[in-house]
Amino acid sequence: MPLRTAFSEMNCSLARALDQMGDPWALLILRECLIGVERFDDFQQALGVARKVLADRLARLTTHGLLERVPLDGSGKRAAYRLTDKGHALVPALVAVMQWGDTWVSGSGREPVRLTGARGAVLAPVQLRTSQGKPVPPHQVRMAPGPGADRRTRGHLAQCAALQDAPGHHA
Amino acid sequence: MPLRTAFSEMNCSLARALDQMGDPWALLILRECLIGVERFDDFQQALGVARKVLADRLARLTTHGLLERVPLDGSGKRAAYRLTDKGHALVPALVAVMQWGDTWVSGSGREPVRLTGARGAVLAPVQLRTSQGKPVPPHQVRMAPGPGADRRTRGHLAQCAALQDAPGHHA
Repeated sequence: MPLRTAFSEMNCSLARALDQMGDPWALLILRECLIGVERFDDFQQALGVARKVLADRLARLTTHGLLERVPLDGSGKRAAYRLTDKGHALVPALVAVMQWGDTWVSGSGREPVRLTGARGAVLAPVQLRTSQGKPVPPHQVRMAPGPGADRRTRGHLAQCAALQDAPGHHA
Repeated sequence: MPLRTAFSEMNCSLARALDQMGDPWALLILRECLIGVERFDDFQQALGVARKVLADRLARLTTHGLLERVPLDGSGKRAAYRLTDKGHALVPALVAVMQWGDTWVSGSGREPVRLTGARGAVLAPVQLRTSQGKPVPPHQVRMAPGPGADRRTRGHLAQCAALQDAPGHHA
């Protein structure tokens, strides 16, 4: 086995996304960006993260295009980190994870933070829908080969579909 | 600084959720569960993950209640791993991450997998909405203290709100 598998090389958008999103620190940095934190020292203070780890994660998120680094003076030493379109596009996923944490870990009535839209309207729990707007319960979600499916992906999905249709399978 | 920060001890549902969800391997295991994989050897073959890592992640997901381990014979050695309600509840977040990876990493027309509902209806991109159903663009998402906010959370959110209202701030 290789010492570290390259998630970026898997033919899977989940694996590729996780590779670029990085570890929990990176996602907590994105959350801080969303509420207006921009400077290294402010991230450091808000998260209590080691400076070396913070510098690494900011560089990684910038390299992958989720953040842009905007110099604030001529020397280029002071800078603000801001969410790009690619970074903002990850917000629904962050919200979905946070809502799951509210419900299943923090618990109802103990949510540390309330998520709202621009004028204070509370966000509804993220719900899956078909392109026609029909709600899809999580246990009904299926996966079929997409346009980028390779032979391995096709074979695996066909095997899994056969498993799910087999008598005695729980689904 | 402590050697490893306990995300579970932060007063933040995102950090707490990430602590229980685990690393990319754990999330790829959940994806496999969703498409019907149940057995240790089948996870191993599908993901190409080291057996020790797989055993650790399955145990972790079971401990945190996202998977249940169902013995398949009297000896208890053969078992199936199945998503619990708590595990199924994480599916919208997994879908949101996968859709982001489709759009921003794999790229349009190269999606390895198509996500569908029960009868093959394609899933729409996850969209944030208020509880009245009004769409909320990602850059409009705000955070306010929730019922579980402690003094530190309140102070930090107040500081950030002031930052965002300050003249010259980008948001």
